[in-house]
Amino acid sequence: MLILMQSEHTKKQLEAVLAKVRALKLKPHVIPGKQSVAVGITGNSGALDPHLFDSMEGVREAVRVSKPYKLAGRDFQHADTVVPVGKFRLGGPGLVVIAGPCAVESEEQMLRIARAVKKAGAHMLRGGAFKPRTSPYAFQGLGKKGLQLLAAARKETGLPVVTEVLDQRSLADVAEYADVLQVGARNMQNFALLKELGQIKKPVMLKRGLSATLDEWLMSAEYLLSEGNKDVFLCERGIRAFSDHARNTLDLNVVPAVKELSHLPIIVDPSHAVGVRARVAPMARAAVAAGAHGLMIEVHDRPDQALCDGPQALHPDDFASLMRDLAAIAGALGRDMASPALKGRG
Amino acid sequence: MLILMQSEHTKKQLEAVLAKVRALKLKPHVIPGKQSVAVGITGNSGALDPHLFDSMEGVREAVRVSKPYKLAGRDFQHADTVVPVGKFRLGGPGLVVIAGPCAVESEEQMLRIARAVKKAGAHMLRGGAFKPRTSPYAFQGLGKKGLQLLAAARKETGLPVVTEVLDQRSLADVAEYADVLQVGARNMQNFALLKELGQIKKPVMLKRGLSATLDEWLMSAEYLLSEGNKDVFLCERGIRAFSDHARNTLDLNVVPAVKELSHLPIIVDPSHAVGVRARVAPMARAAVAAGAHGLMIEVHDRPDQALCDGPQALHPDDFASLMRDLAAIAGALGRDMASPALKGRG
Amino acid sequence: MLILMQSEHTKKQLEAVLAKVRALKLKPHVIPGKQSVAVGITGNSGALDPHLFDSMEGVREAVRVSKPYKLAGRDFQHADTVVPVGKFRLGGPGLVVIAGPCAVESEEQMLRIARAVKKAGAHMLRGGAFKPRTSPYAFQGLGKKGLQLLAAARKETGLPVVTEVLDQRSLADVAEYADVLQVGARNMQNFALLKELGQIKKPVMLKRGLSATLDEWLMSAEYLLSEGNKDVFLCERGIRAFSDHARNTLDLNVVPAVKELSHLPIIVDPSHAVGVRARVAPMARAAVAAGAHGLMIEVHDRPDQALCDGPQALHPDDFASLMRDLAAIAGALGRDMASPALKGRG
Amino acid sequence: MLILMQSEHTKKQLEAVLAKVRALKLKPHVIPGKQSVAVGITGNSGALDPHLFDSMEGVREAVRVSKPYKLAGRDFQHADTVVPVGKFRLGGPGLVVIAGPCAVESEEQMLRIARAVKKAGAHMLRGGAFKPRTSPYAFQGLGKKGLQLLAAARKETGLPVVTEVLDQRSLADVAEYADVLQVGARNMQNFALLKELGQIKKPVMLKRGLSATLDEWLMSAEYLLSEGNKDVFLCERGIRAFSDHARNTLDLNVVPAVKELSHLPIIVDPSHAVGVRARVAPMARAAVAAGAHGLMIEVHDRPDQALCDGPQALHPDDFASLMRDLAAIAGALGRDMASPALKGRG
Repeated sequence: MLILMQSEHTKKQLEAVLAKVRALKLKPHVIPGKQSVAVGITGNSGALDPHLFDSMEGVREAVRVSKPYKLAGRDFQHADTVVPVGKFRLGGPGLVVIAGPCAVESEEQMLRIARAVKKAGAHMLRGGAFKPRTSPYAFQGLGKKGLQLLAAARKETGLPVVTEVLDQRSLADVAEYADVLQVGARNMQNFALLKELGQIKKPVMLKRGLSATLDEWLMSAEYLLSEGNKDVFLCERGIRAFSDHARNTLDLNVVPAVKELSHLPIIVDPSHAVGVRARVAPMARAAVAAGAHGLMIEVHDRPDQALCDGPQALHPDDFASLMRDLAAIAGALGRDMASPALKGRG
Repeated sequence: MLILMQSEHTKKQLEAVLAKVRALKLKPHVIPGKQSVAVGITGNSGALDPHLFDSMEGVREAVRVSKPYKLAGRDFQHADTVVPVGKFRLGGPGLVVIAGPCAVESEEQMLRIARAVKKAGAHMLRGGAFKPRTSPYAFQGLGKKGLQLLAAARKETGLPVVTEVLDQRSLADVAEYADVLQVGARNMQNFALLKELGQIKKPVMLKRGLSATLDEWLMSAEYLLSEGNKDVFLCERGIRAFSDHARNTLDLNVVPAVKELSHLPIIVDPSHAVGVRARVAPMARAAVAAGAHGLMIEVHDRPDQALCDGPQALHPDDFASLMRDLAAIAGALGRDMASPALKGRG
Repeated sequence: MLILMQSEHTKKQLEAVLAKVRALKLKPHVIPGKQSVAVGITGNSGALDPHLFDSMEGVREAVRVSKPYKLAGRDFQHADTVVPVGKFRLGGPGLVVIAGPCAVESEEQMLRIARAVKKAGAHMLRGGAFKPRTSPYAFQGLGKKGLQLLAAARKETGLPVVTEVLDQRSLADVAEYADVLQVGARNMQNFALLKELGQIKKPVMLKRGLSATLDEWLMSAEYLLSEGNKDVFLCERGIRAFSDHARNTLDLNVVPAVKELSHLPIIVDPSHAVGVRARVAPMARAAVAAGAHGLMIEVHDRPDQALCDGPQALHPDDFASLMRDLAAIAGALGRDMASPALKGRG
Repeated sequence: MLILMQSEHTKKQLEAVLAKVRALKLKPHVIPGKQSVAVGITGNSGALDPHLFDSMEGVREAVRVSKPYKLAGRDFQHADTVVPVGKFRLGGPGLVVIAGPCAVESEEQMLRIARAVKKAGAHMLRGGAFKPRTSPYAFQGLGKKGLQLLAAARKETGLPVVTEVLDQRSLADVAEYADVLQVGARNMQNFALLKELGQIKKPVMLKRGLSATLDEWLMSAEYLLSEGNKDVFLCERGIRAFSDHARNTLDLNVVPAVKELSHLPIIVDPSHAVGVRARVAPMARAAVAAGAHGLMIEVHDRPDQALCDGPQALHPDDFASLMRDLAAIAGALGRDMASPALKGRG
């Protein structure tokens, strides 16, 4: 149950609602919204009767919520969320492309690739400084040094920087340097990390876990939103199914599903899902045609020497060619590539 | 191991090869091809040395085959297979769209919808006469009467007809009326049915099973090909994964994977995968952008009265609008909608 | 909705019920039962009010059925089904073990293994005469000759024979020789085959499909039951999940789930699920502890020469040792190995 | 490649090995073991020739390692790891049962249940103080207060305490109070947390992630082991597959697979996998029959009032009855329930 208060409700009216919820042995959760306040109720095993609340003073409507998320859903906020990152806005009609290497390896590597993706039209720069690796013996990233190299690449190219935050200990450092903090698939249900990210003032990109349902994914977004961070967007990167023809199964059908149920923007990372260079471009094109708000693409100019995921990285030339395809598809569907916004969030 | 004979080899040379295979306690399989003959070898647990054969007279090349399929793979036939259906060719640059209702329900229904999809530009007509239903109590299709109604709709519109064959008993009837025989997902490994379909002279569309790997799918195609039917194309229709936001998980990444490994055309059926009308169009657009040779789309003008899968059927107007989108995406990628071929198979 | 008629109802009362169903634009399905008759209603999208029927004359009860299956469920038949096979009964407290080679290869092989499994205490003999193979080039079984060799082994050992029926064309032959007809995982939704098997007078063992939900499995059983064959039992043999440490994922938790929802017996085939000899025995032991009514185990005395699935076959000595373990576990849980029934079905 | 040094090797010999590895542009990882030291080599894409190293002084053997884990595998340590917890040893022939409520709710609740499971023969006590919840609005656990209540229950009953550690911030508190620190399924690849847990001096129980392969699971164990913590055991708790008849699919076949490939003990948590009380006991019995070293079972005396996962908790009486079954099955297979060890680790 979600109780939507009238925009002009009084504090006393709100408290009466909260008291009534508690009298039912349930838990009220005050959820501050843009226009007004909502009260989420949890603790009820079955359905509640909306009439218990909708005749109370100050209450606009009491809504049965079959979905477990509230803030992430269209019931609570109908209009699309648009996340401002630097000069760009993610979540509107303009297609946003994030590109760069899997991992930051050196100053030279980072600058070379940053210049290349900027030239090809990318809107943001990616690069991992802290890398989650299945093996403790694999390259774990340059850490804080990597963050500094990302900042240097941003300074030279003007591209905002997207990078992964792995844990609570390094969160402050990552938040200092990054423009967007990425939560990786393996951390999608690291709730302690999500709670802390909900309290920072930078956009968060939440990747879908390998075996996460759509509800679970939106519930993880709810952790971020309920702590106060509204600049959240989602990233589909493939799920784990039985197929062995690709590293993961890219679930593009989740794109229209997310857009239907949630106001949060959704982008697609085909590189990690398909795992091989030759299939990245077809899936990137498909993601745009499916309606994604953006893409994240791995690019490396010397993939054979890459310390991480070289086989899936596009060469800069192939990336530039892909960017032309994406613009053509976007154009065919009445959209275009994102261009700098004249002012802040609309 | 696959031994490719020279095109001008003699019968005696071929027999010498077969004798050598048998002497190794292995089994030779003579595979007649377009230009020449190949000999597949099975029964070997490990790898065979190609030099055992490639110096024999009449042998062009002996190829190590890591993949279990032979005829379905690019090693055996490099050029794309193009399947002629009526005036159209499936598998070339032109995008082919098959459309129609889930099930044939009545003469009126079939004619109304056939006219509507023809008007919107569809190339072929679909409609189930024999329906595989999870429940024995559900509508099982009109059977032979349904085939006759499809033929009537073909006569009026000129559209070739695609319909499912469920079993051996009705195969002759379906083959008499249909232009393309569809093998459904549940029958992908009904090997007895596949063997019989391999012996008829009409194109077969092989849908992917709900839990079929790419190798298993191509092995089922191999059953058709090895019996002599070369007019085979594939249809991705979603796999079974854990996700609950859709009926099935449409695996578009299999499109470039099939095109890489096999010469067989591949189309996509988004309707069965997504299960709800609103998400059919985004996935149809995505399939074209991913490189599919065609699409199969369910269309119904009175979906609320449909005897089968109404919720996923597009209204004719929405289908016409989708066709315009598909043409725009195809155009953006240098392709176009299929148009009638001037002559037979090229 | 399921309408249960009183055991002493009249034909006229039944027809009044059917007429009322049709007047609601729904479809009645008369389901003859052991004590009485039931009427299944299909075609309703929402729930029906039981009061529409339960006050009619001759009606014992009208039951809301949330599950799609009727005959396979406990609502229709509360008592466990017990399937008589030769001197044994499958589905009661006694544990039934079916053993033998994957495929019938020769008279000698079949007799040697049949004697060995009989000596170790097996209750029935398995062996494939018609083999479903992923590859058209793999050994497809001895066909009718294989059936005759199974009959010879039965004659010598007295063990009833379980063998797979692959298609409609060979059904009559298989039904002539076999004591139990097995439907393999790939044919679980070959509805045409199921309908014909529902009309024969021999027990059918229905394996679970690789991606079948429990509901789908019971619906396939419903196809058999609704055609009149009541001697049906189920066999879990592993599902397809993402795990790569085994060929399939044996889902033992389905055993108590089936026993809760259905009256049909359920056995477990660990051999195909685990795919390697060393893990067959642990899973066989686990299946008994989980409450399975029986097991099907592959045994071969010369597994290195087996034409099919040698790596998963137990040596006869290991099988004998496993049988002792199974008896011990059964004993620890108050059950025992099946022994010959004094008379027919109880 | 894994280079095993002789137990009496010199520091100089080790350094010569390391230098040679580096000269090959590869990375050596010194892995201190019980008897000696091993050197893991990473960075090689293909296989290395063991002869490069096995003739060097101080080298006992150079082993090709096809598996990505080293310390967790049987190649490095053949003998089973036995983890001492209080008076008990987990990993030997004695079956260890951990029982208790999902969450610590109050002092009374904890003491009542602790006494009940102790009386029924449980060896350790479980209870969550920090709870990972899909929803931010669900009960998140009592936190540090919960840890203190667990300690009180331990004091009264003598049972060692197993409880989950959710994040880096609370690790020190959990490590202070718990006897075994549990890593939950969602944190199996929270590598930052694993690294810190590898440095503490208490046993760690590592649950399998919902979509983790066996290799990934053992690689996560490798994170713990490579940091120096050898007291690690595994817990299977169900994977995510397509089945909807249970919350998760309990993969019991992973038990013999783990025992074959790794020396680490493995226990099974049927409660979370099956999600409903009635199926916990069958799966617990099956886990013992499959060879698990232990079990973790949720028990609650007032499940209707439980703040978390009440539907899957066994009543104390049912738990006592299950314990008798488990002892009977263990006995039938030549094992017994764990009893206090006379001295420390054997």
